[in-house]
Amino acid sequence: MQKKRIALYPGTFDALTYGHVDIIQRASRLFDKLVVGVAHNPGKSNWFSIKDRVEMIRKAVEFLDNVEVQDFSGLTVEFARELGTLFIVRGLRAISDFEFEIQLALLNRQMNPDIETVFLAPSTEFIFLSSSAVKDVVIHGGDVSGFVPEHVAEAMKERIHSRKGGQS
Amino acid sequence: MQKKRIALYPGTFDALTYGHVDIIQRASRLFDKLVVGVAHNPGKSNWFSIKDRVEMIRKAVEFLDNVEVQDFSGLTVEFARELGTLFIVRGLRAISDFEFEIQLALLNRQMNPDIETVFLAPSTEFIFLSSSAVKDVVIHGGDVSGFVPEHVAEAMKERIHSRKGGQS
Amino acid sequence: MQKKRIALYPGTFDALTYGHVDIIQRASRLFDKLVVGVAHNPGKSNWFSIKDRVEMIRKAVEFLDNVEVQDFSGLTVEFARELGTLFIVRGLRAISDFEFEIQLALLNRQMNPDIETVFLAPSTEFIFLSSSAVKDVVIHGGDVSGFVPEHVAEAMKERIHSRKGGQS
Amino acid sequence: MQKKRIALYPGTFDALTYGHVDIIQRASRLFDKLVVGVAHNPGKSNWFSIKDRVEMIRKAVEFLDNVEVQDFSGLTVEFARELGTLFIVRGLRAISDFEFEIQLALLNRQMNPDIETVFLAPSTEFIFLSSSAVKDVVIHGGDVSGFVPEHVAEAMKERIHSRKGGQS
Amino acid sequence: MQKKRIALYPGTFDALTYGHVDIIQRASRLFDKLVVGVAHNPGKSNWFSIKDRVEMIRKAVEFLDNVEVQDFSGLTVEFARELGTLFIVRGLRAISDFEFEIQLALLNRQMNPDIETVFLAPSTEFIFLSSSAVKDVVIHGGDVSGFVPEHVAEAMKERIHSRKGGQS
Amino acid sequence: MQKKRIALYPGTFDALTYGHVDIIQRASRLFDKLVVGVAHNPGKSNWFSIKDRVEMIRKAVEFLDNVEVQDFSGLTVEFARELGTLFIVRGLRAISDFEFEIQLALLNRQMNPDIETVFLAPSTEFIFLSSSAVKDVVIHGGDVSGFVPEHVAEAMKERIHSRKGGQS
Repeated sequence: MQKKRIALYPGTFDALTYGHVDIIQRASRLFDKLVVGVAHNPGKSNWFSIKDRVEMIRKAVEFLDNVEVQDFSGLTVEFARELGTLFIVRGLRAISDFEFEIQLALLNRQMNPDIETVFLAPSTEFIFLSSSAVKDVVIHGGDVSGFVPEHVAEAMKERIHSRKGGQS
Repeated sequence: MQKKRIALYPGTFDALTYGHVDIIQRASRLFDKLVVGVAHNPGKSNWFSIKDRVEMIRKAVEFLDNVEVQDFSGLTVEFARELGTLFIVRGLRAISDFEFEIQLALLNRQMNPDIETVFLAPSTEFIFLSSSAVKDVVIHGGDVSGFVPEHVAEAMKERIHSRKGGQS
Repeated sequence: MQKKRIALYPGTFDALTYGHVDIIQRASRLFDKLVVGVAHNPGKSNWFSIKDRVEMIRKAVEFLDNVEVQDFSGLTVEFARELGTLFIVRGLRAISDFEFEIQLALLNRQMNPDIETVFLAPSTEFIFLSSSAVKDVVIHGGDVSGFVPEHVAEAMKERIHSRKGGQS
Repeated sequence: MQKKRIALYPGTFDALTYGHVDIIQRASRLFDKLVVGVAHNPGKSNWFSIKDRVEMIRKAVEFLDNVEVQDFSGLTVEFARELGTLFIVRGLRAISDFEFEIQLALLNRQMNPDIETVFLAPSTEFIFLSSSAVKDVVIHGGDVSGFVPEHVAEAMKERIHSRKGGQS
Repeated sequence: MQKKRIALYPGTFDALTYGHVDIIQRASRLFDKLVVGVAHNPGKSNWFSIKDRVEMIRKAVEFLDNVEVQDFSGLTVEFARELGTLFIVRGLRAISDFEFEIQLALLNRQMNPDIETVFLAPSTEFIFLSSSAVKDVVIHGGDVSGFVPEHVAEAMKERIHSRKGGQS
Repeated sequence: MQKKRIALYPGTFDALTYGHVDIIQRASRLFDKLVVGVAHNPGKSNWFSIKDRVEMIRKAVEFLDNVEVQDFSGLTVEFARELGTLFIVRGLRAISDFEFEIQLALLNRQMNPDIETVFLAPSTEFIFLSSSAVKDVVIHGGDVSGFVPEHVAEAMKERIHSRKGGQS
């Protein structure tokens, strides 16, 4: 009997894009169980609370049986240890990603030599997608239904409107 | 008779450098009419007001007959639609530019499949120039007369002095 | 009345891919007339003769009214001068392209300061395509009907078979 | 009971370096079984025959229970299909690797949408290693015992000497 | 008799990593005297005061006879002129570094054509290290004793604790 | 009294460009003595013999008192050891250079830990120049007097003509 293979896909997911969903699907086929780890990152000025981010991902990936969504604070390698996994999944879109991701992977490996970062390439149609780009489109009044799941698009629009209302 | 070809060169232009002027000149030869679109970007902490930025560019490019300067808010693809053009011009200095610009171009194309981004390479002598680098030189008391038009250099110096005065 | 704008899209096109066709279509909308220039490049060991390459492109772009296909030898800037154009079109797929293309553009500009290279981004679905990758697939017996026009796929298969036959 | 997870690590391995061995070890922990696939690549002028390359790898990885070494010709995706796996493993050393590897991964995915390429980062100490660099050192009479397994170093030296002898 | 060769290694050093120490050691062998210049950078939100940063570096490099540590404000090229040197030393870790550093070097050369920037590669084991990455590890409660000198690690931990205490 | 600092600038220099001359000048200011090392590289199909390459460089740099030109075969680190220097100079034009050069520097450091590679950036006007690009221009009948010293341009033209003559 084979050992059950678990992996961690960590990130801020503020907000979840179809690019993230694509990587989650790909990783869920590679491992027996995938935990999407949503980082608190209190320093960053996120659009959505940790609770909202976790809920948005859960709704988007409920069709995948072996995927769980959990929030975490502290180091990623520490959360991986708690989950009993040595595998961290990351998506590689572009060169700038690559550099940052390789540095992060080597840093994590320095902190725990057994940690292995597994890089996956997203579908070409999502290669230009990033959470910050999507936020920018929403801020300028654009339609993001092709970039993020419907319930995320709704939440982003609401957030912009309530914010503008709050400013007046 | 050929159709008149219009293009949009969008940016923040805070502050206008000789690198921007170089791209404007190159693009003005490629199209019948070029609109330099100055983005409001209220979120960014700009040195100059939208009105000042528009004026500075107008003064710098008044020797070019087929160039207009306009401010705009909202999405770039939306402003292009209003202008009746499908062509967006962008300069490519370095790899980091390239990645960002390609992602932006593909995102814009996703929002309007007919939009075409046209990339131009600046003159080698301006390949190291960026607005933020020029600001940094001004902040540290350096001379930027080789990097930006004279009236922009003056305005940058004034801004630094008035700011320091305001702090005392 | 506006002046007619001509551009040159130079290359070896051995063999023409859907990525090339994509750039040709995009450039044909940007200019009044586009000349696809097929370089002899006698040094390179091409799969197809210059005559075959010209014919394959003509067949693939016959639906575009303002596109012409011509072969040329010598410097690209020299052929551009003969055509009476200052605009050279090139596609940008990846970083490696970018570096090579920028160097080529600056070299060409050094030889003729009025020459402007106009870079276009291909459709995301063709971002991984290159003539050499397609050749590699054909050599290993793979199907390339999704990568190149049908008549090019046929010609590539024939060439491989006749070559193997010739070897036996 | 979990399904057995197989992966393919394809390459030319001419000659096997410690960087390759490092990736093989990492991948062997990620999957239940790893097949190292040695590509014939008849076009390339390899130093070692396919038989020798297979033997050298077998000797170097005999301490890993779940690793098999096989030669193959034809497309990598086709060999993966024969092995009953959808997972291809590749190492990522540098940007130039990254570009080439991403293009290859997307090309393979185009030919079989279920194929997933899994990228792993080598240990930092091997980040500069490549087969061609090692060959270059051997050609110039340098010591490569820190770069390749001992039996590979011996074979490379022998090959150089017999070749020089053959030329005289 | 040869002229004494002085060089300047400028930076923010907030906080000093083993990567910085590695570059300082390498540069100290290349020049007769090396001045580590600690930039004030009042705009940046540094963890440590200029005085603390200078002291931390002095303690870390006291084993190197020909290295001095000084703080400076204003342009780097201006500080180099004051020191009577034309040589600026910078470390090159990754592509993103490379782009930024080349632009900075060319900008500095534009302001003083005699200024030469000398780039050195750090030891591979430090290629993933950056001050911001180390800060991130400290913020999340991780151990950084492998990344920075012991007295720097202590100071970083203290700063985090005093800050948390101050917030309660 | 300071120790005399020697450095080695190794390369194939087939053919010497103004970019090489620029790096030689810069390095000659950084060190007391600079040896330009011309590598035999018998495998590569060079345009010029080792003797001709050495002569062409000598003529181009005779105005620099502290520069010597020597040919060498074998490993660069071995030639550096013979010269009694630990410093190797290399120019950095572009990203592709950077990757290759960093790998080479780390490989050389692996073979001799005391070897330090010193990278210099060429003048922006030469950032697009490479020997292979210049050869390509000459092959296509273009003028390279702006890219290489006059006597090199002559030699390149002669070589092309004698070769064409030999073919007829």
